[in-house]
Amino acid sequence: MSVASRTNLSVNGSRFWETIAASAAIGTGPEGGLRRLALDDADREMRDRFIAWCEEADYSVTVDRLGNLFARRPGRDESLPPVLIGSHLDTQAAGGRFDGIVGVLGGLEVLRSLDDLGIETQRPVEVVNWTNEEGARFTPPMLSSAVFAGLRELEWALAREDDAGVTVGAELDRIGYAGPAPVGGRALDSYFEIHIEQGPRLEAEGFQVGLVTGAYVARGMILKIDGENAHSGPTAMHLRQNAIVGAAMAAVAVNDVGWRYSWCDGKSTVARLEAWPNKPGILSDEARLFIDFRSPDAETTAKMEAEIRAALPEAARRSQCRIEVAEDWTFGDLAFDPDLLTLVRETAGRLEVPLLELPSQAGHDAYNLSKLCPTVLIFTPCKGGITHNEKEDTTLEDQLPGLNVLLNAVVERAAV
Amino acid sequence: MSVASRTNLSVNGSRFWETIAASAAIGTGPEGGLRRLALDDADREMRDRFIAWCEEADYSVTVDRLGNLFARRPGRDESLPPVLIGSHLDTQAAGGRFDGIVGVLGGLEVLRSLDDLGIETQRPVEVVNWTNEEGARFTPPMLSSAVFAGLRELEWALAREDDAGVTVGAELDRIGYAGPAPVGGRALDSYFEIHIEQGPRLEAEGFQVGLVTGAYVARGMILKIDGENAHSGPTAMHLRQNAIVGAAMAAVAVNDVGWRYSWCDGKSTVARLEAWPNKPGILSDEARLFIDFRSPDAETTAKMEAEIRAALPEAARRSQCRIEVAEDWTFGDLAFDPDLLTLVRETAGRLEVPLLELPSQAGHDAYNLSKLCPTVLIFTPCKGGITHNEKEDTTLEDQLPGLNVLLNAVVERAAV
Repeated sequence: MSVASRTNLSVNGSRFWETIAASAAIGTGPEGGLRRLALDDADREMRDRFIAWCEEADYSVTVDRLGNLFARRPGRDESLPPVLIGSHLDTQAAGGRFDGIVGVLGGLEVLRSLDDLGIETQRPVEVVNWTNEEGARFTPPMLSSAVFAGLRELEWALAREDDAGVTVGAELDRIGYAGPAPVGGRALDSYFEIHIEQGPRLEAEGFQVGLVTGAYVARGMILKIDGENAHSGPTAMHLRQNAIVGAAMAAVAVNDVGWRYSWCDGKSTVARLEAWPNKPGILSDEARLFIDFRSPDAETTAKMEAEIRAALPEAARRSQCRIEVAEDWTFGDLAFDPDLLTLVRETAGRLEVPLLELPSQAGHDAYNLSKLCPTVLIFTPCKGGITHNEKEDTTLEDQLPGLNVLLNAVVERAAV
Repeated sequence: MSVASRTNLSVNGSRFWETIAASAAIGTGPEGGLRRLALDDADREMRDRFIAWCEEADYSVTVDRLGNLFARRPGRDESLPPVLIGSHLDTQAAGGRFDGIVGVLGGLEVLRSLDDLGIETQRPVEVVNWTNEEGARFTPPMLSSAVFAGLRELEWALAREDDAGVTVGAELDRIGYAGPAPVGGRALDSYFEIHIEQGPRLEAEGFQVGLVTGAYVARGMILKIDGENAHSGPTAMHLRQNAIVGAAMAAVAVNDVGWRYSWCDGKSTVARLEAWPNKPGILSDEARLFIDFRSPDAETTAKMEAEIRAALPEAARRSQCRIEVAEDWTFGDLAFDPDLLTLVRETAGRLEVPLLELPSQAGHDAYNLSKLCPTVLIFTPCKGGITHNEKEDTTLEDQLPGLNVLLNAVVERAAV
């Protein structure tokens, strides 16, 4: 195939949209979205469906110890490290039909389009489904790509528990997706991820494709609040050490800091509050508060952190509890690959697709992969920026330009 | 037996203390208190033990449909309604060895002392263990005495679920305590309950026996907070409707109202906070906050309620959530029986036991029974007022005067 004839390759939009519809029927939520939590029965059924599609097309499928699925379309030189495309098929408890799914099924559509177009690539091209990206069932999110990228230990990941105390390892065994392949430890040429924006900018500014140039710098913390059990009736106010009240005061302070930085798009989240025993009749003696906060730059995020830490002693004093930062972590301090950024810019230009460059605010598996190999992240629109919600929505028309940029860029990278 | 010879009857203190020690060995907590949640395996074992003691002494035992246990020592006239003594053998998740237990095992000790003293009573005397007084496993507390007193429906109580969704009815079946007797519907002469104070006044003011003349007027509410699911990353602060933040703001406001009335011993409690999905990565769209507040008089409690209700719109506005009172209830609007109050006062005087009259701040099964029959509630000390805590403590010396007042008052009431 000449260079001219591959300047403007297209995926098969209706076929891609059929796979999205088939996915939307597996674990459908009460309001038409998806409830497909990592390693639950719907996730198993979706994995089975994905593998069936891959095998129909003669892509070989590898399952690793964490259930990450790799579908491989061979290259002319099988000794070369593959180009990898991927995202995740799991969802939030009340999630949408596109978050993550566009990336995996879009990757499958790229492979199928290469078949249709009769294109042989020099390098193999693989599509991956990462296990437990959402973190909705097992914390933290982006679990398995972190292990693949060598950022976390396998045994630690297998031992993560859901709210019922069931581990990742046990659920992999139960649904039959504890595969034989090791997790990571092999060379990749590059990693491409395409994902809905999960924000309103593309739609608001009239773009259909975004190129993620970096990420908001995010910090997460688990605050541990220690109080004292006592009867909720007779104990006088000045003797109470109710951990729920300490957590509530810390939560309000964290939220206030987000508001103070909202002028520069800083934001803070109180994501989870747990308390024990958390029962009528008794003051709780322990609570944990999962918080995070982010801003476009590291300096602002550091200021937010300092203000949150400074607010904790006052919350502790007023609630008569002890409050400490039990765990903290950072994500978003990453850079995507300059060559791949250039490739996507040039591909979009060639296809005459307007491209908005923007930072990502949410975490993605691409963050982890960027620590391992050249990585790039492409955004497509979602209506009103609504996501992690059953109402998440988009149109095929809005997804096609991004998929075509992906297809053409992958063809360039994998070398025809 | 002449009146003179029964002016100063005594229980067998060391035997009573042995039953307390035997109870403390069933469901012992990690810090030496008790974890004996309603209808769990430890509760079953304690029930078995209690019944064995009763049968050794030839008291007939009746189990009703809710697992309430009645041990009966016959009277000379079995057609007369019995005098009932009781409390509960279940505990908080990290509870003490005396809360409730003193009342049931103290009642058993009264029956045994009547045997020792060769006293025949005109009326039968019964001892009851009420199922799920604490509400630590199944809400609300004082569950089964409420059904017995006709204040709640049996089917409603059987359907109450614990955090794992297991019902009272299923657990009664599992542990074999779904008895054949109907719940309530029979005449009682009177109800006596002896209970540790769960407050510091007896100890601080140097008394060993308290007579409860009434109760703090308490109001409870479940607040429902409705927000909207959204991604915890990209969503701007002004678009967030995080139900956890709404709940935290309401919790702080409720706590503030308690402090404003602390000068007159008002107090407010944030007892339980639940949120969904309560997960990293997503803003929660729903939360429930269980609160209560109380004061010595109805007028003050009404003022507290008005201030809490008035604070909710501001918490809703700031958190961008909707907040409503989903359920509310009152307890403590009761009067104990004037004749029984006089009987206890005169008995204590005759025994030369100093008596402190005081209101109860915590809820007790006696509140429910007071709606059904003449009822009285006697308090004994607990160290430092500490309760609903494994450190809850007292001495036999501090419990004996109250038990002896109970024994002598019951003998008068049951008529020799």
